[in-house]
Amino acid sequence: MSFFSSGVEYGLHCLLCLVDTKAGASAVSTRDIAELQGLPVEFVAKIFTRLQRANLVTSSAGLHGGFRLARDAREISVLDVVTAIDGEKSLFECKEIRDRCAVFEGNAPVWATQGVCSIHAVMLEAEKSMRSVLSACSLADIAATVQAKADPGFGGAVTDWLMHRGTNRRPRKDLTGPHPGEEGDSLVELS
Amino acid sequence: MSFFSSGVEYGLHCLLCLVDTKAGASAVSTRDIAELQGLPVEFVAKIFTRLQRANLVTSSAGLHGGFRLARDAREISVLDVVTAIDGEKSLFECKEIRDRCAVFEGNAPVWATQGVCSIHAVMLEAEKSMRSVLSACSLADIAATVQAKADPGFGGAVTDWLMHRGTNRRPRKDLTGPHPGEEGDSLVELS
Repeated sequence: MSFFSSGVEYGLHCLLCLVDTKAGASAVSTRDIAELQGLPVEFVAKIFTRLQRANLVTSSAGLHGGFRLARDAREISVLDVVTAIDGEKSLFECKEIRDRCAVFEGNAPVWATQGVCSIHAVMLEAEKSMRSVLSACSLADIAATVQAKADPGFGGAVTDWLMHRGTNRRPRKDLTGPHPGEEGDSLVELS
Repeated sequence: MSFFSSGVEYGLHCLLCLVDTKAGASAVSTRDIAELQGLPVEFVAKIFTRLQRANLVTSSAGLHGGFRLARDAREISVLDVVTAIDGEKSLFECKEIRDRCAVFEGNAPVWATQGVCSIHAVMLEAEKSMRSVLSACSLADIAATVQAKADPGFGGAVTDWLMHRGTNRRPRKDLTGPHPGEEGDSLVELS
């Protein structure tokens, strides 16, 4: 099983749809984002509940409500998204077995358990290095990479698709905001 | 759940016992290593089966048989140990959802799926950075860190403990080598 959930992958793809959302444009509903990306709408709604809780997106209610990025895409890092969706996870969970060494005979000296275990320290350094890469990359950076390889009309086609959906929206069960009872929900991995 | 298993933590602690094993000294049994570290002997035996399969340790049979490092501790990296015990794992498993974008109407253009997905690319960079830290750190490096903070007599006490156990070893079920039927065993996380 990989370290980052599929929710992170889906969340990043979904957020990229919002990078070009102009300030005056309609907000985008989770239903439209999910259908644009070919993802289950309930799953996307749960992802956006977490993104909103982490203040990475803002929501507005009503027929033309939906989500927008809460700040400039250059100021939302991949690490922000990962943490919002998967929570704080560690690569390595130190079980602190240093004090069990038989030569201590059940009475480990202070030096043996003081500070971070030397094995844990290496893992923390590796994790710091990994996080540093994720922190240095913003949604705007990824969007620019996609734009550089995409056909010139792609960005416009996505905007048109979303605008068409927004304009033709009919009243229905609101799926744009947080859902009652979702507080404790976990993002089940999709197979 | 953390990315690296507890087997990695235990394996690294166990291997540190072998760093100072002199060429002429007795090999160390998994039973002695496990009891020195306060770990379940069956679990340590499984870890050493994997370490041996990855050619990080060598084993000898018989009453005074056991394990030694297969090469100098400066030439065994933390990444070697992680890979031997946990196998090749990825931080991120790309599900390649790029081609689902609704604007492609089921017929994604070549540019959309060519090369690595831009989100996956960032994750691969983060993983490379993490692996690079683990690859640059050897068992000898960790042993040196431990030695620098330990009481001066600690290394000698461990050697004496192991020598005493080796000298007083009595014939018993051999737990030093690979165990029949273990090929498919997984290292169950210990709670």
